[in-house]
Amino acid sequence: MSARSGGRDARQKLRSDRTVTYLPSLERGLPYMDLLSPDDLLRLHNISMQILEEIGIEFRDDEAVEMWRAAGADVTGQRVRIDRNQLLELVAKAPETITVHARNPARTVTLGGRKTIFTPAYGSPNVLDLEGKRRNATIEDFVNFAKLAYQAPAMHMTGGVLCEPMDIAVPKRHLHMNYSLIRYSDKPFMGAVTSRERAEDTVAMAKIVFGDEFVNNNTVMVSLANCNSPLVWDATMLDAVKVYSANNQAMIFAPFVLGGASTPASTVAAVAQLNAEALAGVAFAQLIRPGAPCIYGQWLATVSMKSGAPMAGTPEICHMNMLVGQLARHYKLPWRCSGSNTSSKLVDAQAGYEAARNMYGALIAGANFVLSSTGYLEAALTQSYSKFMLDAEQMVMFYKLGQGIVMREMDETLDAIRQSEPGSHYLGTEHTLKNFEQAFFVPDLMNHDSFEQWSFAGAKDANTRGRDAAVRALKEYEAPPIDEAIDEELLDFMKRRELVIGDAVL
Amino acid sequence: MSARSGGRDARQKLRSDRTVTYLPSLERGLPYMDLLSPDDLLRLHNISMQILEEIGIEFRDDEAVEMWRAAGADVTGQRVRIDRNQLLELVAKAPETITVHARNPARTVTLGGRKTIFTPAYGSPNVLDLEGKRRNATIEDFVNFAKLAYQAPAMHMTGGVLCEPMDIAVPKRHLHMNYSLIRYSDKPFMGAVTSRERAEDTVAMAKIVFGDEFVNNNTVMVSLANCNSPLVWDATMLDAVKVYSANNQAMIFAPFVLGGASTPASTVAAVAQLNAEALAGVAFAQLIRPGAPCIYGQWLATVSMKSGAPMAGTPEICHMNMLVGQLARHYKLPWRCSGSNTSSKLVDAQAGYEAARNMYGALIAGANFVLSSTGYLEAALTQSYSKFMLDAEQMVMFYKLGQGIVMREMDETLDAIRQSEPGSHYLGTEHTLKNFEQAFFVPDLMNHDSFEQWSFAGAKDANTRGRDAAVRALKEYEAPPIDEAIDEELLDFMKRRELVIGDAVL
Repeated sequence: MSARSGGRDARQKLRSDRTVTYLPSLERGLPYMDLLSPDDLLRLHNISMQILEEIGIEFRDDEAVEMWRAAGADVTGQRVRIDRNQLLELVAKAPETITVHARNPARTVTLGGRKTIFTPAYGSPNVLDLEGKRRNATIEDFVNFAKLAYQAPAMHMTGGVLCEPMDIAVPKRHLHMNYSLIRYSDKPFMGAVTSRERAEDTVAMAKIVFGDEFVNNNTVMVSLANCNSPLVWDATMLDAVKVYSANNQAMIFAPFVLGGASTPASTVAAVAQLNAEALAGVAFAQLIRPGAPCIYGQWLATVSMKSGAPMAGTPEICHMNMLVGQLARHYKLPWRCSGSNTSSKLVDAQAGYEAARNMYGALIAGANFVLSSTGYLEAALTQSYSKFMLDAEQMVMFYKLGQGIVMREMDETLDAIRQSEPGSHYLGTEHTLKNFEQAFFVPDLMNHDSFEQWSFAGAKDANTRGRDAAVRALKEYEAPPIDEAIDEELLDFMKRRELVIGDAVL
Repeated sequence: MSARSGGRDARQKLRSDRTVTYLPSLERGLPYMDLLSPDDLLRLHNISMQILEEIGIEFRDDEAVEMWRAAGADVTGQRVRIDRNQLLELVAKAPETITVHARNPARTVTLGGRKTIFTPAYGSPNVLDLEGKRRNATIEDFVNFAKLAYQAPAMHMTGGVLCEPMDIAVPKRHLHMNYSLIRYSDKPFMGAVTSRERAEDTVAMAKIVFGDEFVNNNTVMVSLANCNSPLVWDATMLDAVKVYSANNQAMIFAPFVLGGASTPASTVAAVAQLNAEALAGVAFAQLIRPGAPCIYGQWLATVSMKSGAPMAGTPEICHMNMLVGQLARHYKLPWRCSGSNTSSKLVDAQAGYEAARNMYGALIAGANFVLSSTGYLEAALTQSYSKFMLDAEQMVMFYKLGQGIVMREMDETLDAIRQSEPGSHYLGTEHTLKNFEQAFFVPDLMNHDSFEQWSFAGAKDANTRGRDAAVRALKEYEAPPIDEAIDEELLDFMKRRELVIGDAVL
């Protein structure tokens, strides 16, 4: 009886612990898995260098082209050919690790080297809502996902475009997204990239929160620049880079791999191309501000021969991630990939298979910044409440997997085994009672009951349990404190900017 | 137009290829991921040796105990303490790789070293049937799963107890299972282990198929001996080992890890114990016949603190597999683990998450014999038709993942990239048309259509698609040829044995 009530107390303690537990940046305890020999790595690197030297890459922005010309690159129209020595010199200026400050210092995270952080999905115009209905996302959804990300122990950032609040006009949308990310969570967030002005607004809002000097000397945001693959950086993205890099804010340079469409139909060739694209982006940021924090990154899909649609979690994506990881380590750059991706329309077995396989691949490959860790459906077109909750729990498991084993357990091993006789069991041993909680993670949303217990409790599938958990979390949500003066200043800034942007744009 | 019709022809070719394609043993193209330094590996090994030397292990079978006594081990009652020198000498006699012959030589497979094979789930008393109903399994289900395993390109064996045909009395059940495995597929199969007589019947049936001498000199079966953890090998299992090892047939020695119950609540300690158990089993087989083929193996679960239930796909299981892989390579033994495990009662997102994470872990760890690759639900209590089909396709993807990258793709990379302009695409390039099919795997049962296409096609979830695929496969099934005389002799053997076993046992 005492053992049983001890278990109950322990469970209660665990539950109350869980509501306040935030996991710091993951410190990798697994070895790396390098697919390439040092010679082959060099060969792949050389191909990327040849791409940039011989084919070149387009910077479709006059200002950017002028910067490259001034820096001595070979420029013809918008085509920029970059010599490998110049490129590598620039890339070497980017820091190997980045500390991203949160408005609550306890939520500040570091990525790069052996450190990894997880972030929710990005950019979906739709949600699969709490009634299981697929519809356009709204600002209410956006706020909800910010609240869920705040509560998720393994989410290291609140996120960026958690979903597109389609009920707010595009020119004003970033203001409301930024405000929600700042107000409803105290973790680091991602900035707007859809125009220079919106990036400037984002930096201005960050300065309200952190102060001008702090923002100028530290990194408080990570923003995402997608490459228009193959081999194009467009003006919109470059404008955002100019603002953020000048302000010392981190940029992800993300080639957009649709294997067979935006890259050749080859795992190796796709990586050779994305490597050229990402490095050119990182180098450009160094032209703006030497030492600007950069994340080498990509979005990876292979294309279905049947439908032309992007696919997630395929073997080739796992291989690409492994290759990218090895290259990024070679260049000493933090790198990004996507996590719990799926093409599924539902939170069904496909969603589970693809999300888990994709995310396991990202972890094995050693990504430092995992975007789309939670909620992702339909190749990013839909954000699901249920999958957000399920994925968020999966990410705690991936976190623990990534930490590796606890070697000090070896010291107690022989003693632990002596506490049970052959043919007996360990359930009541001193070692078990002392170690059970820490030794093995018990997920809440994965159901391990017997068929009978599970049936009696309503025979709920994972999708239903995920939705229930989202409802519960939103009910239990308590906003983190914010300085009232800062809050008012943010609201005032938004009001002023909305007046300038005007109703005409609606 | 010509490109499009080329694509259509190619798709048709692919489909017709798919029905006849069998994948040979997987040759691993990924590096290994060793969690332990050489020193720590030795330390863990030494703890296992201390367990066997100081605590000992019980062989609950007089004949086995006498064999150990005769071999010079320290025996007290049924407790056998084995000196590490003796143990390692015996273990070294077991072969590093095993070739398992199929009645169709084209389906013969090899496992061990860098070679891996996949096998369906084992032992469930229930099925989730083609109407989605959970019920007791029957011999009709068993035959169906044999047919599905025969057709699955990445299933290297037909399996063993594909499900328990509950409509046939236990004393006769093995005869019908063996016959079905032999008759409805031509891949290698697994043998009965529930008594000495049943193992003998299985060997007798194999001799009908392959001939006495061939069976005596070659391996045509793999059978599974579960250890009664902690530290007990029981008489039933040992009797099966005696029969199979004496006949040169492969045995899996599988400690049954319920972390926290049958082992200490520690990843490292659980592995130290299972290592002692598995090695003692392998050593015992060498007492019977030096050189007997053995597979170092285990079934791994951690126990839920909430319910006492076994859990699949937890981080600690992934760590345990990595440790076991490193140990097995150290002992130069082929090793087994389980693949697509889940505790879910349904083919839902939980089933997908857990199966994929568990299986990815098995692949990364380098298991040579992956049992329970397909169909597994409810911690092995239920075999699902739908999940069988979904998992079978997943295993093709894991196979491709395990093969690693195709380095010769590097030779064509620069040329491939030159075939498209920056900002253009690769869909129609010569390189793409030549390589699309081989470059990227396109699963059939994972849906990558747009939401609209998918809705129009009936909005089927993965579970429904899996069930449809099972119905289709059973309809399309064509039995592999079998020599009529052999078939008659098998049926005659069964009839004679059933008469001996008698109706009384029913």
